[in-house]
Amino acid sequence: MRHSEYDVVILGCGPAGLSAAVNATIRNKKVLVIGGDPCSPPMHKAQKIDNYLGLPSISGAELLQRFMAHAQAMDIEIINGKIDLITDMGEDYQLILQDQFISSKTIIIATGVPYKNTLPREEDMLGKGLGYCATCDGPLYRDKTVMLISHNEEGEEEADFMAQICRNVYYVPLYKKIGTMDARVKVLQERPQEIIGKEELAGVRMANGQVIPVDGLFILGGETSPSRLIPGLEMDDRHIIVNRKQETNLHGVLAAGDCTGKPYQVAKSIGEGQVAGLQASSLASTRPTNKGF
Amino acid sequence: MRHSEYDVVILGCGPAGLSAAVNATIRNKKVLVIGGDPCSPPMHKAQKIDNYLGLPSISGAELLQRFMAHAQAMDIEIINGKIDLITDMGEDYQLILQDQFISSKTIIIATGVPYKNTLPREEDMLGKGLGYCATCDGPLYRDKTVMLISHNEEGEEEADFMAQICRNVYYVPLYKKIGTMDARVKVLQERPQEIIGKEELAGVRMANGQVIPVDGLFILGGETSPSRLIPGLEMDDRHIIVNRKQETNLHGVLAAGDCTGKPYQVAKSIGEGQVAGLQASSLASTRPTNKGF
Repeated sequence: MRHSEYDVVILGCGPAGLSAAVNATIRNKKVLVIGGDPCSPPMHKAQKIDNYLGLPSISGAELLQRFMAHAQAMDIEIINGKIDLITDMGEDYQLILQDQFISSKTIIIATGVPYKNTLPREEDMLGKGLGYCATCDGPLYRDKTVMLISHNEEGEEEADFMAQICRNVYYVPLYKKIGTMDARVKVLQERPQEIIGKEELAGVRMANGQVIPVDGLFILGGETSPSRLIPGLEMDDRHIIVNRKQETNLHGVLAAGDCTGKPYQVAKSIGEGQVAGLQASSLASTRPTNKGF
Repeated sequence: MRHSEYDVVILGCGPAGLSAAVNATIRNKKVLVIGGDPCSPPMHKAQKIDNYLGLPSISGAELLQRFMAHAQAMDIEIINGKIDLITDMGEDYQLILQDQFISSKTIIIATGVPYKNTLPREEDMLGKGLGYCATCDGPLYRDKTVMLISHNEEGEEEADFMAQICRNVYYVPLYKKIGTMDARVKVLQERPQEIIGKEELAGVRMANGQVIPVDGLFILGGETSPSRLIPGLEMDDRHIIVNRKQETNLHGVLAAGDCTGKPYQVAKSIGEGQVAGLQASSLASTRPTNKGF
């Protein structure tokens, strides 16, 4: 597996992420931006933005294009992808992206509008029957009943796997065009509404009122909460808590833009991205490199 | 005297001030910007700014021009002037500008790079022999010895006035081209260096080492510290303390840009200006108007 080392890895290619990238690059840092496609879906859809000073009356898509052009003119490395877990290795942070093993002295989270749970009370039930990776936890549910709720077709493979070891597998697709699956998987077209159970998971209530008793519940392909992305990250409800240097409670982890709180606006994101990019650059300069051995 | 009422009065026409103005105007607030000329002297001098996303490789003067054009296209009222004192009237804030009596529900301080004292220890000696308005405190120094240090020619008139009531008046101009003054005023060409005295003012040490004993010292035409501008404003050394909504410790008083702390950068100022402009708009909507009687 390829191994790449960076000073600053930025998650998100919206205004906050690109502003951070430009500022860290100017400070001569090795920068990687990992973003979705398109960058900043809400900005992409904005018909007219009139309050980003210096560029009046411009569409969100056009402004985003200008931001991207600015970053590209500086040869900033921007790749498309999604990170599920970042691990603190003491001296740096490590993450895996497709076939790459990446380490970075600092991380800037600029993932945009706050994470929304698929179901209420997810965080309460985590580890009490609810999980986000069926194949990881599968063995715990041998001969039992599980439900997989999936935001995309990648859940189908996990459901097929679970069908081999579980007694009952319910599969709830939150997308259209379901592929061919193991015949033992029961596909439900009803939307899930509520988790049943307090100390332990008991079942899931569907939109039609029916309660399906399950031992295990997996939610797949949804947005990843920043505090699941980097364990230990402090949040205030749905927003990441930052100080005025855009630092989180974890050393070397910063956050900027909509994920840190309202107002959800371009200029605020650009400003926070700048502060995060400069502060990460300063932290990366003082962190020891990993190459001492 | 003319009396004008506003929702948001903004001190400073640099990036933070104009960003605040644009955002408050979009929220339909009545906005006034009071700024110097040029707006943001440090930005005006910047040869090339490369980290304001969307407008790469631009001179500070050109970027400032674009900011001003954006504000002007929105018909924002911008006037040239300097405010010395803002008074909290409970329901609103009041200030005097030339021939205008101005009241505003909210104030945004965006006065740029932090205030620098003319001499060390000014704040310690305030009220112990040091003041900022000679004509106001003049009667206290009848038949005594005073020194006036002035950043501009406006101090000459004050010195002439003091010469009529004081025994000795020293005048230290920190500018060139001194006009004709009362013959009793002793003009010193040496720069002042240090305030002498602990519990009470004793004198001023000049750059050549000479100590001039004085009873009163006035510093005129210098920058106004934000905490003198609005009494009670909390500062951390030279910066105004704000929360993440850009609110200061005083209700309805916000601050944005360089005056709130480093990094002294355009994007940070633009972002903070936006947050301050939106938050002031929200506060102005909930503050009762002054027209109930």
